[in-house]
Amino acid sequence: MDRNKALELVRPHLTEHRYIHTLGVEKAAVELAGKYGADIEKARIAAILHDYAKFRPKEEMQAIVRQSSLPDDLLLYGTELLHAPVGAMLLEKEAGIKDKEILSAVSYHTTGRDSMTLLEKVIFLADYIEPNRIFPGVDEVRELAETSLEKASLKALQNTILFLMKQNQLIYPFTILAYNGLLREIKGK
Amino acid sequence: MDRNKALELVRPHLTEHRYIHTLGVEKAAVELAGKYGADIEKARIAAILHDYAKFRPKEEMQAIVRQSSLPDDLLLYGTELLHAPVGAMLLEKEAGIKDKEILSAVSYHTTGRDSMTLLEKVIFLADYIEPNRIFPGVDEVRELAETSLEKASLKALQNTILFLMKQNQLIYPFTILAYNGLLREIKGK
Repeated sequence: MDRNKALELVRPHLTEHRYIHTLGVEKAAVELAGKYGADIEKARIAAILHDYAKFRPKEEMQAIVRQSSLPDDLLLYGTELLHAPVGAMLLEKEAGIKDKEILSAVSYHTTGRDSMTLLEKVIFLADYIEPNRIFPGVDEVRELAETSLEKASLKALQNTILFLMKQNQLIYPFTILAYNGLLREIKGK
Repeated sequence: MDRNKALELVRPHLTEHRYIHTLGVEKAAVELAGKYGADIEKARIAAILHDYAKFRPKEEMQAIVRQSSLPDDLLLYGTELLHAPVGAMLLEKEAGIKDKEILSAVSYHTTGRDSMTLLEKVIFLADYIEPNRIFPGVDEVRELAETSLEKASLKALQNTILFLMKQNQLIYPFTILAYNGLLREIKGK
């Protein structure tokens, strides 16, 4: 799938605001892929597609989780989590995307997971630091992203965990597995 | 097992400092048990025994995990975690403690776990707020403990997760499951 086809595919599913965000994620992902040796075209397509299911009705996403091979425990957490794995599933089903690397980068862009692939890290981090993001702490992560994909992703995860705890929100266990995995990579063990 | 027998059992295994801590945990646990309707004598004995394996050599604890039914992933985290589940195992083997409630309260006093029992919460929290503890944030948890076992335990877990992240240390997944479990209890779902 080329850039224009991917943009055409997602445009009807996104708000204007979210489309601008998506273009920002594309820009950030292409830069990160270039810097850290990921496949630039896969990074581009995964970035454009990452929020494909963002605005699906909650009930539709819950039904998809129930009927699919996705882990049922996703239903026990905030519905904000669902659009990523459901998006990957729908991209395969509805749009015929078959590239497993792209699908897994979409699937784990919100929670992360243990032993993240290079492309998964690129999309996770690009989603966090894309130029339109302005929340507290994002500049520190952008700075870390200049020198280490892992340290920047770890910091982003730490900020996310902190934010969730401050809001008394549930933390999906994959997020902690991602944190532990990145920490082990950074410490070299 | 009565109080004196329990104290006799642990005394040779603890430093003076840790023995004083243990007596503090006993005091806090008895108070919490009284306030929240846990079995006071079980709370007392679990508190006295909770650090039974605290000073076992790291290698001995790792060998015990490998040879036992304890989850192997314990070995992938800080050795500080091991004394709790290994302690429960040794209390059963070496000291003939058979009470499952006491053993599980010892086993999960450091990490917590999903769906913690009343006695597990009491020992986890008593270990955190006992009168000799003086670290930042402990007074806030003591205050919460006056009115809610769950809210105080949740705050203690949040502080622990925050501390581990600041130190760039691994977080054992059970700790997040405990956090999520307490949050669900508090929110009533």
